[in-house]
Order: sequence, then C-alpha cells, then structure tokens
Amino acid sequence: MGMTLVEKILAKASGKRSVSPGDIVMAKIDVAMVHDITGPLTVNTLEKEGIEKVWDPEKIVILFDHQVPADSINAAENHILMRKFVKKHGIKNFYDIREGVCHQVLPEKGHVVPGTVVVGADSHTCTHGAFGAFATGIGSTDMAAVFATGELWFKVPETLYFNITGELNPYVTSKDVILHIIGEVGFDGATYKAVQFGGETVKNMSIASRMTMTNMAIEMGAKTGVIEPDEKTINYIKEVMRKHGREKPFEVIKGDEDAEYEEVYEIEVDDLNPVFACPHAVDNVKPAREVAGKPIDQVFIGSCTNGRLEDLRMAMRIIEEHGGIAEDVRVIVTPASREVMLAAMEEGLIQKFYKYGCVVTNPSCSACMGALYGILGPGEVGVATSNRNFRGREGSLDSEVYLASPITAAACAVKGELVDPRDL
Amino acid sequence: MGMTLVEKILAKASGKRSVSPGDIVMAKIDVAMVHDITGPLTVNTLEKEGIEKVWDPEKIVILFDHQVPADSINAAENHILMRKFVKKHGIKNFYDIREGVCHQVLPEKGHVVPGTVVVGADSHTCTHGAFGAFATGIGSTDMAAVFATGELWFKVPETLYFNITGELNPYVTSKDVILHIIGEVGFDGATYKAVQFGGETVKNMSIASRMTMTNMAIEMGAKTGVIEPDEKTINYIKEVMRKHGREKPFEVIKGDEDAEYEEVYEIEVDDLNPVFACPHAVDNVKPAREVAGKPIDQVFIGSCTNGRLEDLRMAMRIIEEHGGIAEDVRVIVTPASREVMLAAMEEGLIQKFYKYGCVVTNPSCSACMGALYGILGPGEVGVATSNRNFRGREGSLDSEVYLASPITAAACAVKGELVDPRDL
Repeated sequence: MGMTLVEKILAKASGKRSVSPGDIVMAKIDVAMVHDITGPLTVNTLEKEGIEKVWDPEKIVILFDHQVPADSINAAENHILMRKFVKKHGIKNFYDIREGVCHQVLPEKGHVVPGTVVVGADSHTCTHGAFGAFATGIGSTDMAAVFATGELWFKVPETLYFNITGELNPYVTSKDVILHIIGEVGFDGATYKAVQFGGETVKNMSIASRMTMTNMAIEMGAKTGVIEPDEKTINYIKEVMRKHGREKPFEVIKGDEDAEYEEVYEIEVDDLNPVFACPHAVDNVKPAREVAGKPIDQVFIGSCTNGRLEDLRMAMRIIEEHGGIAEDVRVIVTPASREVMLAAMEEGLIQKFYKYGCVVTNPSCSACMGALYGILGPGEVGVATSNRNFRGREGSLDSEVYLASPITAAACAVKGELVDPRDL
Repeated sequence: MGMTLVEKILAKASGKRSVSPGDIVMAKIDVAMVHDITGPLTVNTLEKEGIEKVWDPEKIVILFDHQVPADSINAAENHILMRKFVKKHGIKNFYDIREGVCHQVLPEKGHVVPGTVVVGADSHTCTHGAFGAFATGIGSTDMAAVFATGELWFKVPETLYFNITGELNPYVTSKDVILHIIGEVGFDGATYKAVQFGGETVKNMSIASRMTMTNMAIEMGAKTGVIEPDEKTINYIKEVMRKHGREKPFEVIKGDEDAEYEEVYEIEVDDLNPVFACPHAVDNVKPAREVAGKPIDQVFIGSCTNGRLEDLRMAMRIIEEHGGIAEDVRVIVTPASREVMLAAMEEGLIQKFYKYGCVVTNPSCSACMGALYGILGPGEVGVATSNRNFRGREGSLDSEVYLASPITAAACAVKGELVDPRDL
C-alpha cells in the first residue's frame, strides 16, 4: 500500500520506512518559526526550564509581523525580549519589523522547501504546504520543546484529497475555490486531517494562488494543507534561493500512485461563482449575488491569504476599470511583505492605490486580526481578503466581516456595498 | 505707532482699526479644525449644549490623522461619531483616514491663506503661521464655541521678533535653527507671545522649512509663530488653490514698518551646528557632537514638523551617500500626507527607503505621540524629527527621545548611534 505525500514526509522525518494514519511519530523539524506575539511565550518557557542552548540556530526563524511598528509599550517589550533572544542564541534568520507577514516571508526568502517539516507558532503555518512541505501551526510551549530538541511528535493524519478540475471564470479566484470547499466541508470537516489539493485547476494556478488555498486549510480544521510540488514549485524555490544566497539541495517528495486517501472530493470549478464567507463563520459561504446590496464601511486587501502581487494587481484592475472607489468606503491595502511592496511600487500599483484614495500600510498582519490597525467599530461592515471572520475578529463584537477574493473585495470598494464583481 | 503682523490680523478679524498687546478682542474665525482625537469632545459638547447648527460648514475642517487606520475600537467609535457629524452638518472639508497630518493637509489643500485667523484643536496649529496667518491651538470645548458662533476671544499677544541672518551649513536645517532658538529662549520663554521669524535666512527658506519653524513655536510657549508672507508664500498658495479648485482672493497682510516688538533677537546662523534636543525637554538643546556616540534603537522621520518632501529627500541623501542604515536600528518613515507620499514615490524615494530596510507607514501622526505605532520600549533610545521629547512621549516612561533634523536623524540611522552628520 502506497503512502500519501504527507505520510511520506512524516515517514522520512521520523526515520521510518513507512507510516500509516494514526501512527504517532517523532519527527525531526526542518524549520521552526515564531513571531512577535507567540515568540515571547516560547522564550519565557525555555528560560523557565533553564534551557541555555537551542538545538539549531540555523533552523529557527524569528519574525515580527503582528505589531509592527510596535503599537504599545507591551509590544515594544516583546520585541526587545525577542531581539535579546536572537542575539544570545545567534539566530541567523531574524526578520525585524520591516519584512512583512511570516507566511509570505518564509517562502520568499527560501526557508521553505518540498519534503520538509515546518512548524510555526501561528495557525496559518499550513500555508507552506503549497510548496509540498508538511507545515503546521503549533503552540508556543510546544515550540519551546522544538527549540530545545529539534523534534516534535505528530499523529500521522488521514489525507482528504480535493481533485479540482475545470477553468475558473476570470472573476473567480483560488480564494473563491477554497471558500467554496470550506463551505462544503464545514469549519470542522477536516479536523486533524491533511487536506491535499490537486487536479488541473491547481496545476494551472500560480504559486501565490496555491498559497491562498493551503493558507485556509486550518479554516476547515485541517492539520495541514498540501499541494504536490511540480515544475512551477521547483522553479519558484530555486529562484528565491538564488536571490537570497540560500541555495541548497532539496528532495522533492510526491505521494505514491497507489496512496490511500480517506476521501477524494471531486470539485468542478467551471461554474463556480464569486462568493463571500458571511458573518460570523468562514464556512458560511454564499454566492456573492445572494448577499449583494448591503452597504459596507471598509475593505481590507492584504494578509497572508491574499496580500501578494497578483492580489494587488487583481484589485487594482477592478478599481481602475471602474475609475475609483466609493467615496464613503475606506480601503486599506497591505502588501504581505517588503518584497511585494517593492514589486508593487515597481509596477506603479501602490502609487495608483494612493491616487485612488486607498490607504496603503507598511507590510504587516494589518487589519486581519483586529489589533494593529483597521479596526471595525460597532455596527460597521467590512469586506476582507483575509482568512477569518469570527465575531469581533476585526474589531467590535458588533461588527461584521465578509471574506472574499481581492477581485470581489475591490468590486465592493468600487460599489460601496457587497457586490458580485461581474455585476459592477 | 504701527502694528505687528499678528496685531494687524487680529485687528482686522475683530473689526478694529488698531489693537495693542493686552487688548481682549473677539475675532472672527476663518478656519476651524478638529481631528480624530479632539473632535469628539467638541461634538459631544455641542450636542450637550443642544446646538443643532454650526456657524459655517464651509469654514470647518475635520480630519483624521492620529489614529489612522483606527487602531482600537474606541478610535473606530470616534471616527464613526465624527463621520456622522460631518454628514449631519454638511461639512465640506472632511478628510477621512487617508490624507495625512492636519497641519500638512490644511495648507496643502488651500485652506490656509495669509491674513486669516486659523484655530485648530491641536497645539501645533501654530504651523500655519508660516503662511502669514494668525494660527493657534485651542481646546475642544473652546472649539465647540467656535463651531457654534464662528468667533473666539483672544488677548492680543506681544510679539518677539527673531531676525535670522547668515547662511546655513549644508548639514544644518531650519529644524536646527528652531531648536537652537528654543534652547536659547527656553520652553516657557515665549509664553503667550507671538514669535515672528524673519531675516534673510528665513527669506531663503523653502515653505516646508518655514513650516518647521512655526510648527515649533508652541515649544517655547508661544501663542503662535508667524512669518511674513512673501512672493514664495503667495505662489505656493495660488498653486495649491488652483490644484484643488479652491481659488479665492486673499489679502496679504504685513506688519508695519514701525511695528513695536517686545524684543528683537538677532540670530546669526553661519556657524550654527547640527543639534539635538535631548531628553526630556525640547529646550535641552546641545550640539550634536556633544552627545555623539550613544547607541540608538529607533529613528523616526516624519510628523507635521519634518515629514515633507524636502525632509524625505534630505534623509535619503544621507542614507544613500553612506550606503544604508545600521543593521540594529529600526527606521520608521512617515510622509506627512498623501500628496507627500505620492510625490515621494514619483521621485523613487519611498522605493529607496524600503530598499534600504526602512519601514514606511501610511501618512499619519505615526510615532510622534507614542500611541499609534513606533512605540519605544523601556530603556530604548529614539531619534525623531518630530517636535516633542517629554518623558514617555514616544512610549515607555523609561525611553528617551532625541529631537533632530532629518539630516541628523538619517545620519544616526546610518551610524546606529547619535552623531553629528558632518562626522559620518
């Protein structure tokens, strides 16, 4: 019996010839990431336990993205604590307040390669599965154990396979596909499973679009989301490694032909409509036309889900085509990283966002988690390209967040209300 | 006996042929500005008093700059309150979260003209004196009275005249001049006086540099700072009025030849050195060389004092000349307005700041007041181009802020410590 991609990665990482779903394995960790919110608890745990040396300073990545630049004295203190830790342990891969969102920066800088095990103290670490890695979010205290030993136990998950076929309408993106899937499966429909996305539609997707898919695996409860690496993946990784002088060999692992999946879902996207995930659950997914017409206050375009260059391009295309944004809507644009920001300025995109009256912030988690800026007040309605719309996620408990693609979000910015981008 | 510029403006505004220092006058207000922090108290006061109509919706300017995008639910609520007020009263001049710092936006959009009385519920409203207006900060409840009646009483201030002569060293800016003056006069040395800046050096200054001077008048206790309008002023104003379709006639008022000043200070700047205002007082001014060598954590380039295009140019010139910023220093750059941001992108400045690893934020008050972002933690040392360095102003009570020009601040960013830019 063959193994799935995730099973093969976990077998390799735990030094076993084969593993099966349900097995408990002790896996070697290739990359361990904490950010400014989760890192301090990891550091304090290590110090409380008297651990003076980390297992491998080259395999740890520390990055600030949630509260950048520091938005409170407490945030500044967290940053100071982490900078001291970085110096003390000689952590090589440290990205201070300037680089952007961790899940964008890690692959962009060549830290993520196929066939490896990536853990991050952040629930959207599953994003890196887009590169054929086993990537998952873990708690800060578990991370302390990883920092100390370089290993962590996992129960090998079952894999659900989503075979996605058909051609997307030009107004429909990978965000609509993943929201559609979450709507079908439910917020807990894949709890502790691996979800693997494949098929011709995924094959045709850009790396950025694939990251949007795996990013949201956690929103159906999955342990990870994964896409089998192909030529596109390998080229992307070789390119970023070259760019950042981080060239090293990597092994491309693929699932066996006769791998056994717990379930195979056939998803046909030819007729897929633009959708919203409506308040207050990511799986409350409805065709955009069904909820169109509701006035909105704010649009947020950014996050580890949809803050990449193609997302900014898609949003700007809509805004430009329709000559601007509605007067009463605030539009907050946050490129996911410094590299995205630079590339977007190179193309003149940021200039255009400013010209049309959008607010472009520094690369950060921005409005996604209702803490840094872009907070919604009571009674306000926001459209966001991010990944969560739980009650109060973006601010007041009495606000509402509709999740959408950058195309749909930009259409809402133009119209000043919820709208299907095809109806503008 | 002739009148000073300020006396002539107040005489005109109060319908008198002449006024003298110490007179109490009731002046007609030409522009009344509140922002997102001070506006809500004004609005609540009006509502408490049952005032249903503002005196003139065309003369009120409402602008959000301190907490943009909203950084808390409370900030979002303040914004909601103000937006409702704007709609209810048909306020024409409303600038939501996107435009930048009030003291930059008002003149940039053509709201400030010579000879007028400008009040703002913000202490640095004196900035507008750079255009030959009488401009001063007032409290939010006083502002409610202005919103209701369009008038406010003032005691006519004595005028201190600073005759500034000589040529500035290329590493010395108007910021060094005003810090030097504040160091001489003291933080309370001009309490309730008008301070007027003139002389060949001021004549040769750009409008932006002049705004830096008048901006800091309040830091020596002055009621206002003022500069007599000249060709440069008039051209600037005509240009912005044209650009924003706000063309209207204005009267250029100048002081009488035989005006009586309480005191005339002769300031010779040929030999002026770059300076720092050291913790924790704006008048604790020292030559940069005297305090050089102290390691720093953060540099902030921005604010209504020094967030204009020429400031960004000066800072980038230094950073470029020296090939980048120190590794351990965070540099936060905040263009003072959307127009500054667009112009700076047009010149490639923002791109370069990002390239060199600075964080460029959206136009806002930014790190200036220790509330939005750029907060200093305990023990941290910051250099800032802003206007205040009181204990805790930029964050922790145990942090320190050194005020400097954009040139000196950029030099510190390059060196990673306090430095005289001539010694890099």
